[in-house]
Amino acid sequence: MTDRIALATDLDTAAADARRAFAATVASTAADRAAWLRAVADELDAHRDELVAIADEESHLGQVRLNGEVARTTAQLRLFADAVLEGSYLEATIDHPNPAATPPLPDLRRILRPLGPVAVFSASNFPFAFSVAGGDTASALAAGCPVIVKGHSAHPRLSLRTAELVAGALAAAGAPDGIFSHVTGRETGVALVQHPEVRAVGFTGSLHGGRALFDLANGRPDPIPFYGELSAVNPVLITQAALDARADELATGLAGSFTLGVGQFCTNPGVVFVPAGSGFAERVAAAVGAAPAAVPMLTDGIADAFAGAVGSLAARDGVRVVGGSAEQHAGSGSAIVLATDAATVIADTDALYTECFGPSTLVVEYDSVDQALEAIAKVGGSLTGSVHAEPGEDVSAIVAVLSEVAGRVLFGGWPTGVAVSWSQQHGGPWPSTTTIHTSVGVTAIRRFLRPVAYQSAPESALPDELKESNPLGIPRRVDGRLVLPA
Amino acid sequence: MTDRIALATDLDTAAADARRAFAATVASTAADRAAWLRAVADELDAHRDELVAIADEESHLGQVRLNGEVARTTAQLRLFADAVLEGSYLEATIDHPNPAATPPLPDLRRILRPLGPVAVFSASNFPFAFSVAGGDTASALAAGCPVIVKGHSAHPRLSLRTAELVAGALAAAGAPDGIFSHVTGRETGVALVQHPEVRAVGFTGSLHGGRALFDLANGRPDPIPFYGELSAVNPVLITQAALDARADELATGLAGSFTLGVGQFCTNPGVVFVPAGSGFAERVAAAVGAAPAAVPMLTDGIADAFAGAVGSLAARDGVRVVGGSAEQHAGSGSAIVLATDAATVIADTDALYTECFGPSTLVVEYDSVDQALEAIAKVGGSLTGSVHAEPGEDVSAIVAVLSEVAGRVLFGGWPTGVAVSWSQQHGGPWPSTTTIHTSVGVTAIRRFLRPVAYQSAPESALPDELKESNPLGIPRRVDGRLVLPA
Repeated sequence: MTDRIALATDLDTAAADARRAFAATVASTAADRAAWLRAVADELDAHRDELVAIADEESHLGQVRLNGEVARTTAQLRLFADAVLEGSYLEATIDHPNPAATPPLPDLRRILRPLGPVAVFSASNFPFAFSVAGGDTASALAAGCPVIVKGHSAHPRLSLRTAELVAGALAAAGAPDGIFSHVTGRETGVALVQHPEVRAVGFTGSLHGGRALFDLANGRPDPIPFYGELSAVNPVLITQAALDARADELATGLAGSFTLGVGQFCTNPGVVFVPAGSGFAERVAAAVGAAPAAVPMLTDGIADAFAGAVGSLAARDGVRVVGGSAEQHAGSGSAIVLATDAATVIADTDALYTECFGPSTLVVEYDSVDQALEAIAKVGGSLTGSVHAEPGEDVSAIVAVLSEVAGRVLFGGWPTGVAVSWSQQHGGPWPSTTTIHTSVGVTAIRRFLRPVAYQSAPESALPDELKESNPLGIPRRVDGRLVLPA
Repeated sequence: MTDRIALATDLDTAAADARRAFAATVASTAADRAAWLRAVADELDAHRDELVAIADEESHLGQVRLNGEVARTTAQLRLFADAVLEGSYLEATIDHPNPAATPPLPDLRRILRPLGPVAVFSASNFPFAFSVAGGDTASALAAGCPVIVKGHSAHPRLSLRTAELVAGALAAAGAPDGIFSHVTGRETGVALVQHPEVRAVGFTGSLHGGRALFDLANGRPDPIPFYGELSAVNPVLITQAALDARADELATGLAGSFTLGVGQFCTNPGVVFVPAGSGFAERVAAAVGAAPAAVPMLTDGIADAFAGAVGSLAARDGVRVVGGSAEQHAGSGSAIVLATDAATVIADTDALYTECFGPSTLVVEYDSVDQALEAIAKVGGSLTGSVHAEPGEDVSAIVAVLSEVAGRVLFGGWPTGVAVSWSQQHGGPWPSTTTIHTSVGVTAIRRFLRPVAYQSAPESALPDELKESNPLGIPRRVDGRLVLPA
């Protein structure tokens, strides 16, 4: 298995393998898929030290963060295994026939089925959790879809080694040959999105690159869904009362959040609205320190892009550098705090709402909450929106606006840190994501499924999940009512 | 209200109205939305005779069919009202905090929220059920999205009158001004898909027109979901045993299905696979009759397109006309039965799998079921796939292929006739639809919703559906387990 993986730089081979594997995965049982996911989790856990060492060399993210990320990744695989066994993600629905209706209603039973081979693009900033064995791979395998991963060039050795372990674990657990392949290279990625055998794409990356691939996926003779998580500025609003109550705590919290992982998080708090004249930007700068360290970033390209982005931002009329410097060191990022006011943001939205992927934040002073909300509404779409207020404050108008622009609304917290759970939503209006689905949490499985209804089917032709006796004991909707297993 | 509707040919006004209305609909209660839907249903039922008379003049579909379609349309509105009150479509999910987890898990609560103003393109062939007050409108209103309908030029007076009644009923039921508008014209439709205020599109129509609008929706600076139902050939496979047992019944059934409504159904059985040498095509031709009547079609354009499509099909090598004639009368369609063999289909897929929107079917003789399945797999995507077999036959290979190409798999039935129910799936792989969702049945609501998660929210900031006490008594997932109201 390891040999095949090492050689699978040939996309056509990987795609043909995936198509053949799909004939088996589409007929796999929930128990099969749960066992595959758990086998992958166990194998990664067993090789954690080896993987973290490679990852640290390639990403500079550090042992603590990387160990935590492996734990998150394997917990994610096991959560999807649990969800597969629980079975409600299939939306199994049974309507018994009603001959008395006009027109008569036939027996109709609906279930979700896997789409087919899925392409997964690894992200640079999460070498485990959003990469070879990350959330997209876990949700595609859970759905019953073979996966072709396009490894990220920022961690090539880690990608290949992870792929070897994943493929080996899947094979040992009895998964069909070809269920998982690993390819590399920018041109291969372009071809992957256009490959006839590929039925959906999961992507985490830049707005520029993601948009190009989104356009290719939609421009195909047979368009396929492109689930991209692209760009977010993650607005934060702090009320006067919150600032009065705990300005230092807020400044320290923000400094910790926007510099975490050298700011290389899609949930980085990029624009923070505070009352005018509060001196909050200076407080944040003080929390960061007078001479922020230059910390190696994931790649030189990312560091260059960060330097360019903060340089452009600092050069806009009405924007000032309050802490750190727009002058960055090659290959590294050092924390920078910028400040402006809400009127400037409203007038210069496109430039000021550009995501700076790195340790920067823009503190925006507002004259009124209404003005801040006018500016936040112009964000368009973001992964998160946060409010810091005091108990008893009426935040309904703030929550209404944040709910419109973001997929996750936080109260009194900072957006970095994304729990992997049933209720998580990682996605929001364009450009944060490209669709109405999430890329983190159990419902991410829905992206790789499509409904099929069986009309007047004999019991023997139905999948087990739709048989009258409910042999797998899954939640189902029967004649319009949700029914839980006994 | 009637005046405003009559004047709302101005798209910008309609869009601005819809955006303003959204501020109210997004905050509406389930009871509000259910009342709106039921008010529309009641109003249409109360004006059924008037509407059917206009529809018959414009569509030539006949009183019986049109009365049935009104009943289907109002039942659909009421079913969505029931679903809104039941509440599980919101996928409400609560994960309580877990401070013991690594990292600690916050309180996180997820719900689906409406996308914003939705554009609905009426279909020509269902002047009620897929038009002004049809499934797309019903599901968008159920979700809490204002609707801008682009009326179809095939039934302009009916569209306008229906729009007046819908708008009046909504206003009387207390829905916000601007929740529903009606615009017309091809260029307006193009502008509608590109309008900044429009957040999603529902479309039922041709592959050519649908693809053009799909490309516009995805080509926007901020792409929006385009839910199109475009084109299907709806393959049918009849086994030797079924043919031996009931050839006449099958021929009569097929003749009735493909000529129903002058063949103007997207679920028309377009290609029917039968054992070679069975003489089934001749039997179908006999069932249709020696001189099939020329029946007025929906529009002259549809009749012209039908004549062109069957003419092209009849002219392909290996295709013969068995019943009726490829010569059609202007403005009308008359039934035509064509025949070929599976090898020809496999070799000439693109030409032979072109949808003929009208009363035609292509009987395809196969040498083996495997050969037939090879041909059916080349369909790509279709709304339906049907098998006629005898009890006890192993149809697993047939069902596997039909499940891959279609969204609804029928056993012993004909695909025309689409029940509106919880379990319905109307949609399948491209080109039958553009996404992984359905346009008929309760789950169509999901198309116009997106998830939002609330992290560590105070009870007062949560929507009622996520409050700890579950005041509305809806099904929810709590800490990973589905919980039904007592």
